[in-house]
Amino acid sequence: MEIVVLRLGHRPERDQRVTTHVGLVGRALGAKGMLLAANDQGIERSITKVTKQWGGNFFVKTGVNWRAELASWRQSGGKVCHLTMYGENILEVIPEIRAEMKKENAHLMVVVGAEKVPFEVFEAADWNVAVSNQPHSEVAALALLLDHLHEGRELKAVFEHAELQIVPKKRGKEVIVTKRV
Amino acid sequence: MEIVVLRLGHRPERDQRVTTHVGLVGRALGAKGMLLAANDQGIERSITKVTKQWGGNFFVKTGVNWRAELASWRQSGGKVCHLTMYGENILEVIPEIRAEMKKENAHLMVVVGAEKVPFEVFEAADWNVAVSNQPHSEVAALALLLDHLHEGRELKAVFEHAELQIVPKKRGKEVIVTKRV
Repeated sequence: MEIVVLRLGHRPERDQRVTTHVGLVGRALGAKGMLLAANDQGIERSITKVTKQWGGNFFVKTGVNWRAELASWRQSGGKVCHLTMYGENILEVIPEIRAEMKKENAHLMVVVGAEKVPFEVFEAADWNVAVSNQPHSEVAALALLLDHLHEGRELKAVFEHAELQIVPKKRGKEVIVTKRV
Repeated sequence: MEIVVLRLGHRPERDQRVTTHVGLVGRALGAKGMLLAANDQGIERSITKVTKQWGGNFFVKTGVNWRAELASWRQSGGKVCHLTMYGENILEVIPEIRAEMKKENAHLMVVVGAEKVPFEVFEAADWNVAVSNQPHSEVAALALLLDHLHEGRELKAVFEHAELQIVPKKRGKEVIVTKRV
């Protein structure tokens, strides 16, 4: 199962931290990368820095044309899940999404909007999924979708070639540092 | 089970949206209220506006003294869960937290920090919980903790006296508006 996050509606002046959180959640919870439909090198830099330190191969691509990305994803047989509080409740649709993702070469684009997502996104999506039908946070919605999709397994993921690795502790902090020279 | 979120380390100039998301996630996923250890009336206003429209009784209290709140919570027999990527993995500790929360009059304070949480918080907590031991987002960490605690039931919560209520849909938007006059 391959998952890519498509972030729409990012306004550099307002959304920098929220979009960074979207990317970091994608990385931590098992997505392969994030496509950002805006030019914001700062986001790319900060997420790439985290990946360098904490491992894995998460990619960030900025300045994408979301219409083109959506179209080519669908053309290649990929599925699209759009997170929106107006959609079907996650508990209703997650079994179907999970089943689809167990098929060979399954790949899923998760569309995470900000305010006012164009109606064509609702139309292009295989699933419009509401992570509760209440207003809250696209960061939380993405996290809960990925967690329900992976059924919790991603919460113990170990990342390859990490410079920093946490040793879980009841109290305090312990980090193993492996510097490549 | 009664849950209150304590938000630490909020800097009004930088954290306004992230802290608003923390509050909205708390509200949507079954917490009773948020204590904010900073003076930021804007947060209180925007979350209270959401509660007025979308229902329920979620409270926001700003300008609290976090040391005093933690101490009185513990004195009243409440448990404290601190979200930190340095802690024990959520999958290891969630059965214990769930069991504690099934006891009579159980109440849980979930501490959500920003950068550099004082060590006394680690010490005061009954559980220091890592929602994955990777850096990502306090918004996502709170959402996943609440979801694992409630085992998904909160995702279908219906809120009392809501002016706005979404009718889940495969495509498009449908909202029932009930204006009290």
